[in-house]
Amino acid sequence: MRAVRTVLVALGCAAVMIALSAPLQAQSVREWRGSHQGEILDEYSRLLRLPNIARNSADMRRNAEFIREMYARRGVGLQLLEVPDAPPAVFGELKTPGAAHTITLYAHYDGQPVVPAEWANKAPFEPELRDTSGKLLPWPSTNQFDPEWRLHARSASDDKAPIMAILAALDALKASGRRPSVNLKFFFDGEEEGGSPHLAAILTKYKSQLSSDGWVFCDGPMHPSRRPSLTYGSRGNMILELTIYGPLVELHSGHYGNWAPNPALMLAQLLTSMKDESGRVRIRGFYDEVKPLTAPEKRVLNAMPKLDAELMRSFALGSIEAEMPLGEAVTVPALNVQGIISGGVGAEARNVVPATATTSLGIRLVTAMDPKKTLNLVMDHIRRQGFFITEQPATEEMRRSHAKVAYLRPTSGMTRAVRTPLDSLFATHIKDAIEKVHGPVIQVLTSGGTLPIDAIDDVLASPVITLPIVNHDNNQHSHNENIRLKNLWDGIETMASLMTLDWK
Amino acid sequence: MRAVRTVLVALGCAAVMIALSAPLQAQSVREWRGSHQGEILDEYSRLLRLPNIARNSADMRRNAEFIREMYARRGVGLQLLEVPDAPPAVFGELKTPGAAHTITLYAHYDGQPVVPAEWANKAPFEPELRDTSGKLLPWPSTNQFDPEWRLHARSASDDKAPIMAILAALDALKASGRRPSVNLKFFFDGEEEGGSPHLAAILTKYKSQLSSDGWVFCDGPMHPSRRPSLTYGSRGNMILELTIYGPLVELHSGHYGNWAPNPALMLAQLLTSMKDESGRVRIRGFYDEVKPLTAPEKRVLNAMPKLDAELMRSFALGSIEAEMPLGEAVTVPALNVQGIISGGVGAEARNVVPATATTSLGIRLVTAMDPKKTLNLVMDHIRRQGFFITEQPATEEMRRSHAKVAYLRPTSGMTRAVRTPLDSLFATHIKDAIEKVHGPVIQVLTSGGTLPIDAIDDVLASPVITLPIVNHDNNQHSHNENIRLKNLWDGIETMASLMTLDWK
Repeated sequence: MRAVRTVLVALGCAAVMIALSAPLQAQSVREWRGSHQGEILDEYSRLLRLPNIARNSADMRRNAEFIREMYARRGVGLQLLEVPDAPPAVFGELKTPGAAHTITLYAHYDGQPVVPAEWANKAPFEPELRDTSGKLLPWPSTNQFDPEWRLHARSASDDKAPIMAILAALDALKASGRRPSVNLKFFFDGEEEGGSPHLAAILTKYKSQLSSDGWVFCDGPMHPSRRPSLTYGSRGNMILELTIYGPLVELHSGHYGNWAPNPALMLAQLLTSMKDESGRVRIRGFYDEVKPLTAPEKRVLNAMPKLDAELMRSFALGSIEAEMPLGEAVTVPALNVQGIISGGVGAEARNVVPATATTSLGIRLVTAMDPKKTLNLVMDHIRRQGFFITEQPATEEMRRSHAKVAYLRPTSGMTRAVRTPLDSLFATHIKDAIEKVHGPVIQVLTSGGTLPIDAIDDVLASPVITLPIVNHDNNQHSHNENIRLKNLWDGIETMASLMTLDWK
Repeated sequence: MRAVRTVLVALGCAAVMIALSAPLQAQSVREWRGSHQGEILDEYSRLLRLPNIARNSADMRRNAEFIREMYARRGVGLQLLEVPDAPPAVFGELKTPGAAHTITLYAHYDGQPVVPAEWANKAPFEPELRDTSGKLLPWPSTNQFDPEWRLHARSASDDKAPIMAILAALDALKASGRRPSVNLKFFFDGEEEGGSPHLAAILTKYKSQLSSDGWVFCDGPMHPSRRPSLTYGSRGNMILELTIYGPLVELHSGHYGNWAPNPALMLAQLLTSMKDESGRVRIRGFYDEVKPLTAPEKRVLNAMPKLDAELMRSFALGSIEAEMPLGEAVTVPALNVQGIISGGVGAEARNVVPATATTSLGIRLVTAMDPKKTLNLVMDHIRRQGFFITEQPATEEMRRSHAKVAYLRPTSGMTRAVRTPLDSLFATHIKDAIEKVHGPVIQVLTSGGTLPIDAIDDVLASPVITLPIVNHDNNQHSHNENIRLKNLWDGIETMASLMTLDWK
C-alpha cells in the first residue's frame, strides 16, 4: 500500500491521496458486499420484475409500494408524494442527529417502453445474468459472480440501480457500525422517462419537506472510460411527433404512385430541410441563444478523456454526424430523428402510397434556450416548407384544403437545460466524497441527456449534480438493457461515501 | 327500346348499337344471376376464407385445390402446373367443337400480405357484407342484395373475383342453353403479388398446352368512372429494400444524439436526393429510355375521362405529386416510397438514435426500359450520395470502414413493361365483346400497375389485354379490401360475353 502511495504522489495525483485517507470504510463496504452479492442481486431482481412503464399506473404503484417496503425493512420510512394523474414520487428522510447539512439522493423508478420481441429473452422484466457477449448464464449456486457479468432487464441500469445501491450502502454501513454524517433525503421519481411532467407540481406541493443543500441525481450512464464522473448540468429536452398526410387510405402504388402525394417522401424532404449532412440544424434561429463556452469550461472540456475513436469502433461507426468530439457535441443543441413509421417494409411491405408518415423528433436544448421559443422556430420552419400545421389530427377538410398538412404535437414535457457552477460549495463536497473512494473524477459540464432538474432549480432553487453509477454500454432505452455488476458494486461504495461525507 | 335506340343513333353512338344487338343473352345472364346471387356469394365467401399469402405454401395449395374443385363441379378439368418453390398455377381448357380461336382468361389467386389489426373486423379472411360507409350488414335471409353493398375480404377484388365471375358465367350460359363460341383456357397464377417470379418457368415448361390467340388479364381495378375499360399494357415493376445503418445498437439520443450518425435522417436525405418536390425522379438517366407518346396514343389518352378532381376529393388530397393528370402520370416511370421503418413512434417512441432505417422502394417502368439497367442507375445514384452498397446485410467491419453503408436488395422479380397494339385483331375482338354488353369502353394505353405479362410476351409471344372488373375504390393491397357487388354482377356478364364472342 505504501509503495503504491509513493508512486502516486510522485505522479502528483493529489486526488488519489485523498482516497487513500479513507480506505478502511471503502474496504469494509466492499467486504460486506462481497459476502452478500447474491442477496443483493436477488432483492434487486425482485424489483426489476415489476413492469414500470409510466403510462400503466397500476404497475407504477406496485413499484412504489415495493420500494417503500424495501426501505421500511431498513427502518427508513418513505411516503408516496401524490398529485393527480401522475405516478407517485417515493420520498423519505433519514436524519442524522447533529448533522447540519442535508443531501437529497434522486433516482427514478419508471422505465422506457419496451418491445419484448427485440429482447434476447423476449421478456424485458425477467432479469437474467449474461456475460459480456450476451450469452445467458445460469444463476450461480455459490456467491461467486464475475464482476464483468451483466444483469439484463428493463431499468437494470436506468434507473433502478441507484435505488438498490443506496439500500445496500445503508446495510453495509450498519454492518460496520457506522452512521451517515449528513441528513439524507431520498426522492424517487415515477415519470422521468416521460420528462417528469408533474415534478414541478410535486415539488411545489411538498416544498416544505424538500429543502436540502443540494440534489445528487443518480441517473444516466458513466463516462465510457469507466472513470467516476460528475455532471454539472443536463440538456433540456422536447419531443415532438409529426404526422404528414398522404391519401385518406393507402393507394395502390402502381395506379396512383406518382400522382398521389407520398407522405413518406414529404416527411423525408421535411427532415432533410431541418438538418444538413454535417449535422448542423438548419432551422432558422435554432442556435441563436447558444453561448460560447468560457475559458474554465473549455479547460474542463479539454481535460475529458477523448474516447471518440473507441466508441466508433464499439458502435461500428465509420463516421460521426457532428464535426466535433462527443464531449463538445453535447454542449450544443441537437435535433434527432428518433423514429419514422410509414407503410411497411420486409414481410409487411405493401405496394402502396402510404396514407401517413409519422416521425418522433427529439430536440435537446442547452442553457439559455427557451423550449417554447424553440418550438415556435420549429413550427415556423415547417410552415416555410409549405405545410399547414394542425395541433389535432387533420380533418378530411384540412387535408383537402392544403397541399401539405402536418399534425404536430409535443409528446413530452418541455425541460430547460440547467447547469450548477463548478466551484459551488455543494459541488466541491460531492466531488471530494467520490474521489475518496474512486480517485479523480471526470468533470462533465453537461450531460447530453436530460434530467428534470429545471423544476428543482425553479421550485427549490437547489443545486443539482449528476452522479452516474451505471456502465455506458448498458443499452438504456433500447432492448437488452443491462447493468455491469462491477458498476453496481462500485455504486454501493459511492453511496456509502456520499452518506458519510465530511462537510467542512 | 326503339326510342332509346333512335336517340343513341342520333348521338352517333355506334358502340351502343352493337350492344343492343345482343340484349337477350345479357338479359338471360342477368336474370340467372339475380335469382342465384346468394349462392354465388356463399360460394365466393368459401374461397375468400382461404388465406392466400404467397409465402405460405400450404395455404396456397389449399386455394389451388379448392379452385380445382369449384371448376370440376362444372365439368371443367383444371390441373396444377408445378415448378419447384412456387405455388402452382391452376390451368385448364374448355374446348368448343369447331371453334378456330382460343382465348386465355387469366386471374391470380394469391393476395397481398395483411395486417389484421388494421381491418375493421381484424380478420381479413372472414368475408363480411358492409354498406358503402363501411357499416357491417347482416347476411340477408332472402336473395335481396343491394348492388352497392361491398363484400369485404383480402382478395375479394384482387384477384379472386374473376375466378368466381368466370364460374358464374359458365353456370349462367348453361342455364340458358348456350355454349361458348371459342375455346377457353383458364390460367390462375399463384404469386402475382410477388411479381410472378416463376411465371416464365411455368410458361416455358407447359408451353405446348398454352397457345392461344391472346390472353385476357382479369386483374386490377376498373376506371374510377365505372365505365368498362380495356388496358393494352402495364408498367413494369421492381421493388427494392434499402437499409441504412447507424450505430450497432440503438443509442441514447441525449448522450449520442448529435454525434452518432442517424440512419433515419441519412435515409431521409437519400430519398430526398432521389425525387424532387414536383415528383420528378432525380436519378441520373432514369428517364433516358422513355419514348414520347405517338399521336394515336395521345388521342386515346385525351379521350379518357378526367377524374383527377373527383379522386382528389375522394382521397382527401389538397395537391397531387405529378404535374400531369393521372392518365398521363402512369405513362411515365415512377419511384414510390412504399414504407419507412426506423425506431419507433407513438407508444413505441424511444429517445434513441435508431440502429437502422429501412425503406421499401417501388419502381414502375414503362416500355423500352430495362429493369436491370434501371437498377444500376439507382445503385449509381446511391453511390454518388456517398454510400457503400452491400447486397448482403452489412458486417460490423463494413460499417466501421465506410461513412455510409446501404444494404440494397430487390425483393421482387423484375418485370418489364409491355404494350399490345391498339389495332391488333385480338384487341379489336375483345373490345367488341365488352361493348356488346356494357357500351363504349375506355381505352387505356397502360395500367399504372404491373402485371407479369412480360413473361407471356417473352415465352408465348401472345398479345395480352387487361380487362378489369372490380371497383376502383376496393382498397386493394391495403386493409378493408372489398368488392362492390354490382362489379361482380357486371363481371359475370362480361365473362359470358367474352366466352361467346363473334370472331370474324
